[in-house]
Amino acid sequence: MRFGSYRVDIPFDQLKRYKRLLLQFPAGLKVYAREIADVIEERTNSEVFISADPCFGACDLAIDLAKSIGADALIHFGHLPIPNLKIDFPVIFVNAVMDMDVQKVSEKIYRNVREKSINLVTTAQHIDFIHSIKRNLESQGFLVDIGEGDDRISKPGLVLGCNFSSALHGNANSIVFIGTGNFHPVGVSLVTSKPVYALDPVSMKIKMPEEIANEKDKLLKKRYSLIALSKDANKFGIIISSKIGQRRLELATRLKEEIEKMDKDAHLLVLDNVSPSLLRDFGKFDCLISTACPRIAIDDYDNFDSPILTPIEFEILVGRREVNKYVLDSIS
Amino acid sequence: MRFGSYRVDIPFDQLKRYKRLLLQFPAGLKVYAREIADVIEERTNSEVFISADPCFGACDLAIDLAKSIGADALIHFGHLPIPNLKIDFPVIFVNAVMDMDVQKVSEKIYRNVREKSINLVTTAQHIDFIHSIKRNLESQGFLVDIGEGDDRISKPGLVLGCNFSSALHGNANSIVFIGTGNFHPVGVSLVTSKPVYALDPVSMKIKMPEEIANEKDKLLKKRYSLIALSKDANKFGIIISSKIGQRRLELATRLKEEIEKMDKDAHLLVLDNVSPSLLRDFGKFDCLISTACPRIAIDDYDNFDSPILTPIEFEILVGRREVNKYVLDSIS
Repeated sequence: MRFGSYRVDIPFDQLKRYKRLLLQFPAGLKVYAREIADVIEERTNSEVFISADPCFGACDLAIDLAKSIGADALIHFGHLPIPNLKIDFPVIFVNAVMDMDVQKVSEKIYRNVREKSINLVTTAQHIDFIHSIKRNLESQGFLVDIGEGDDRISKPGLVLGCNFSSALHGNANSIVFIGTGNFHPVGVSLVTSKPVYALDPVSMKIKMPEEIANEKDKLLKKRYSLIALSKDANKFGIIISSKIGQRRLELATRLKEEIEKMDKDAHLLVLDNVSPSLLRDFGKFDCLISTACPRIAIDDYDNFDSPILTPIEFEILVGRREVNKYVLDSIS
Repeated sequence: MRFGSYRVDIPFDQLKRYKRLLLQFPAGLKVYAREIADVIEERTNSEVFISADPCFGACDLAIDLAKSIGADALIHFGHLPIPNLKIDFPVIFVNAVMDMDVQKVSEKIYRNVREKSINLVTTAQHIDFIHSIKRNLESQGFLVDIGEGDDRISKPGLVLGCNFSSALHGNANSIVFIGTGNFHPVGVSLVTSKPVYALDPVSMKIKMPEEIANEKDKLLKKRYSLIALSKDANKFGIIISSKIGQRRLELATRLKEEIEKMDKDAHLLVLDNVSPSLLRDFGKFDCLISTACPRIAIDDYDNFDSPILTPIEFEILVGRREVNKYVLDSIS
């Protein structure tokens, strides 16, 4: 079925076996939530509830919410499953595939990419088109690779904000990211050190490797300055997300032990949605370390009252990792 | 032990039996969270985690959060337990008692209250002093009653944002509320129709019944205007909180049925912390009905894009309740 510029294939027959369903959508799909709820109620006999909590990825499954209302399944829209996540509740993943002019996207790539061998990566909403693009590029004489990714990655070529493993595989000389924003291409650039192109399939604008490298340098400068600001930190707050796919308890408790061995303060702060204003209630921390979604420290640092580091950056802070071995934090 | 102007009696011996504890605090106590965590770690062998999620009352127990980190008990600070709440997890309630000059408070009351019989009500942080105040007032010739409350109320004289039952009991001619803000005294005034005095034990300012009645009129005017704005509503959003003590599923599904029988749209929206911005993602609702904490519709209506009603106000909207039978929504 079509909702706006998305194709969403709802497995009605599968849903019929459940009495009460909780539907979960990322922010961009919530505008279709009521329409989708109506269609499901019409075509099944299920009672349908909609989660209005924030939803940031397949790491963020509203299982507790579903249980709290006595639902017997969660329908999670807009992300692909995370294969190595242990889930003790029926979750049905329904991807939302955004319209794409595959011909135009392919052309844009082969007119701009200078290398002759390419590793293609993208996000869930575009993943269905990646093989057509590969074929188009191959017919133009390119060598195209689509990497497998590790156990957190369900489809070849998929990258997540917390996992760029599919970009690491294969022998291509360049990487082409299809999607929006700088976070993914910069992350890919950091892990691969190869030229990275970023093509936005909506605006059809392409960012060249120089631009991505420039963004990477800006990010690194910012991150090094936050690490420097934390040099004399004595009071650490270690952030743990309760979200099923972001919860890194062992890492967090290990960090606490390590900090306390240095005779400094460390406290473990658990929460669902990490927000600067919620942490503000506790008073001043000299440094926050986020073991939750890696994007929080990178995208939102400016809103926190204290420097906020990733666990990787903490390793640099305490000298366990060399400065030039900087990578983005990842979850595997 | 003392933390700022609070007395907090932590049952260390009881806590020793747990390996991993999650501590939960309302916003105003979070500033002492790290100090309290340190004391507990020192005096027990427990590993201590702090919840950084919002916490609005004893209705809002971080049990799922505690389970998510493998804690074996939740220590909930700053509220009294809700006796009729079914809880399947060890929760230890530790109240935080705010300092009070009982003599001064008693004097302020007997110098200002015109009636000779008084029903005393207050909130958790002041409840420990209510019997001393009663004795002081009695020695001045007042008849003082402290009402028992229903099964949601753990101590005589306690009022909650969702439950004023302790104000209903007894035969006093007036009610004295000890605490801050207008919400509770206005609520008490609405359920009892008696003169209500509100004494803030911090500022030592007393609001006389005329002032509370005035606040009540303002509130009623606002509420009637929101009901009027919803007269032609076709698209309803019914808000359900997933919080253990705010979750009114049956009420919500009954409302949905009732609205659909009127040939109008109704969708069930479940979330943990009800926030206007989260609801905005869904697009326009003509009217929201909140079955969550009764204070959300009353305190926050101005931040929502649609009129937000309580279930009681919905009854007025559809003619199931007379306009002059308005009461605040309550949970019992």
